Amino acid sequence: MTDSSIRVGLLGCGTVGAAVVRLLDGHAADIARRAGCRLEVARVAVRDPAKVRDVPLDPATFTGDPMAVVDDPELDIVCELIGGVEPAGSLVLAAFERGKPVVTANKELLATRGRELFDAADASGLDLYFEAAVGGGIPLIRPLKESLTGERVRRVMGIVNGTTNFVLTTMAEEGWAFADALTEAQRLGYAEADPTADVEGHDAAAKCAILASIAFNARVTAADVFREGISTVTSEDIEFARRLGYVVKLLAIAELVDGDRIAARVHPAMIPATHPLAAVRDAFNAVFVEGPSIGELMFYGRGAGGGPTATAVVGDLVSVARNLRAGARGVGCTCFLERTIRPMSEMEGQYYILLRVEDRPGVLADIAGVFGRSRVSIKSVWQEGTGDDAQLVFITHRAREGGFQESVAGVRELTAVKEVRSILRVEAEE
Amino acid sequence: MTDSSIRVGLLGCGTVGAAVVRLLDGHAADIARRAGCRLEVARVAVRDPAKVRDVPLDPATFTGDPMAVVDDPELDIVCELIGGVEPAGSLVLAAFERGKPVVTANKELLATRGRELFDAADASGLDLYFEAAVGGGIPLIRPLKESLTGERVRRVMGIVNGTTNFVLTTMAEEGWAFADALTEAQRLGYAEADPTADVEGHDAAAKCAILASIAFNARVTAADVFREGISTVTSEDIEFARRLGYVVKLLAIAELVDGDRIAARVHPAMIPATHPLAAVRDAFNAVFVEGPSIGELMFYGRGAGGGPTATAVVGDLVSVARNLRAGARGVGCTCFLERTIRPMSEMEGQYYILLRVEDRPGVLADIAGVFGRSRVSIKSVWQEGTGDDAQLVFITHRAREGGFQESVAGVRELTAVKEVRSILRVEAEE
Repeated sequence: MTDSSIRVGLLGCGTVGAAVVRLLDGHAADIARRAGCRLEVARVAVRDPAKVRDVPLDPATFTGDPMAVVDDPELDIVCELIGGVEPAGSLVLAAFERGKPVVTANKELLATRGRELFDAADASGLDLYFEAAVGGGIPLIRPLKESLTGERVRRVMGIVNGTTNFVLTTMAEEGWAFADALTEAQRLGYAEADPTADVEGHDAAAKCAILASIAFNARVTAADVFREGISTVTSEDIEFARRLGYVVKLLAIAELVDGDRIAARVHPAMIPATHPLAAVRDAFNAVFVEGPSIGELMFYGRGAGGGPTATAVVGDLVSVARNLRAGARGVGCTCFLERTIRPMSEMEGQYYILLRVEDRPGVLADIAGVFGRSRVSIKSVWQEGTGDDAQLVFITHRAREGGFQESVAGVRELTAVKEVRSILRVEAEE
Repeated sequence: MTDSSIRVGLLGCGTVGAAVVRLLDGHAADIARRAGCRLEVARVAVRDPAKVRDVPLDPATFTGDPMAVVDDPELDIVCELIGGVEPAGSLVLAAFERGKPVVTANKELLATRGRELFDAADASGLDLYFEAAVGGGIPLIRPLKESLTGERVRRVMGIVNGTTNFVLTTMAEEGWAFADALTEAQRLGYAEADPTADVEGHDAAAKCAILASIAFNARVTAADVFREGISTVTSEDIEFARRLGYVVKLLAIAELVDGDRIAARVHPAMIPATHPLAAVRDAFNAVFVEGPSIGELMFYGRGAGGGPTATAVVGDLVSVARNLRAGARGVGCTCFLERTIRPMSEMEGQYYILLRVEDRPGVLADIAGVFGRSRVSIKSVWQEGTGDDAQLVFITHRAREGGFQESVAGVRELTAVKEVRSILRVEAEE
């Protein structure tokens, strides 16, 4: 650290990294005023340092060796934008060992090895900032960690994956099948060539774990989050949802239950078309935070993309730079408490279930009987089609997940039931 | 400041003050963990110290003399919740003179004497935090000041006054007249006995000035904000809006225009019913922030009330306490720049205008002629009623405010025009 500038070492220079470099360069004067000093990207580790990049940096800034960045005694802050658990995790730990604070956008790393990283940051008295890890450009981490210190957050619920929200929006608005909507998302750059992390809910589960950890002051990992993706959602489900006044969204929900346990889950769900989250379209994200004092807060914006994510990274870099110059440290790990995770089987919720059935009297009575024995109460049911195309659509009242799954197993056994076509949870209603 | 606790002196103990005391008491252990020390309300100045209050404080804590709180060498932070410009302003300045940082929720004070107060805070190296001054419990100041340091905000637009939003929602949903909706708001405690500050837009203008100052890094005062209230909005306007696919909201809009000038205004406006702000009902607030990197962000929540506002105050108290203990200081004044204010006459916008007219051929041609000469282009027009009840409803394309006002003056001169019944701006459309 010189008097007039803070030197940043960048690990990774993809879409977000390049946008960070451009922001720091293009807004240099603004940022210098806000940070109290210049912020300079002094070294960048990339896979191929010879590649020509559209960033305002001397080619000599690039290296193929990320450890050369972490080791460089001239650098003040390490900014990790490689993604993935390794080597990112080892590099972050090495940065702390060398006395360098870290800014990262790496949700996967934080949601799997968060405790280890925050322990290392706390032990060395260094900042670990990660606003960009959840919600892209939407300020979420700072409000939760700093603005809501006087609140006991009860629930965090939101749409935290832009890819799946784009796919579901396209299915609903264009009437397309899942596979076609996904291809379109890939064509537009909203989905990766291998879309598994997004489509199967891994990305959302990591973000859910991070939000739950901060909201409830206890470490929650991605493995603690119940997870279902959207690849089984059909256009038929979306059409039935529409006719019932619902919209299908991939939700991340983290709740404090039974006073002291955490419930965290990611799955597609029907929500009322009048719910504010139903209006969150395309690749946008939105997160609700609920508590007894604040009531309901919502944060909405672009949850991904170079510009929004880089804005969050630069906000963190400026805060860490200010802290360095003040000889202070920002808010460290806030997971003061140990809390247990409620098993999914104990969750209470509403369900939509679509069955292909034999079209004859007595079938509904048989199915209703199975539900009743598992203490699942039916809110509404109607028949679609007749003869070979006969289907029954059920919406339940609130029931225990365990009881509901038991009743689904029972329904599958019925000879009158040809197929359990779909099951979706219904949220934000009863 | 003792090793284990930070002592807060409260000025004012109304709805918000009492809620602050209860939060600090009820969540004492949580807050101590987050702040790194206990926060204790050690002294409270109120008008009538003998009054019995439902707060967990020793009656000896209360005093009738606010200067006794500011002067008390045992206190570490002054929390100003009196409201109004004086004596609040003098008390805040006195606190800085005595080396005490200040947390305030006083939008009126900040929007009129902000520069003086921030200069005093900066000169003494003390924190002045004010998250609660805008948007109640919604984190807005911290995200704008800290999360968006890498962004050049272009526009801030929102609903920042809960009282008027409740009145407009009630008028729209119940079909009530303004006066009846206001009486209902007063009955429910959403409006003061003297509702002028809310109804005439003074409260929103103060908040608009504060948001503009932070968003554009230049001091904007309440006097710089063009202001119109909602007392002239009729149920007829709201009904016409509805039929046209609009909703009427009191908006606060601050924009960076012509590269370097600030335009700030508060007025009722028609916005498309599909716009996210149209769905903000009752006493809720919502603020959009737009910029080239982040795109669009929205923050939504309860903009007033004891619980939400107290949450924001406590968040600030914890931050200031952390800073005190670290011997550091949070982000100070960020109004680095001098920018000029664009006069309202240079604004470009769309307008709705409702005229009572003579019901005969040629009237529309006369009126359209007047608009045309002022370069105001008509987007749509239709007639309501006939004979003595004949009215014409116009929606214009985007036009200069100056030209529009000139054309309104011209229209008033026409003998065929009996009355200019209403004028509303139309936002977020063209």
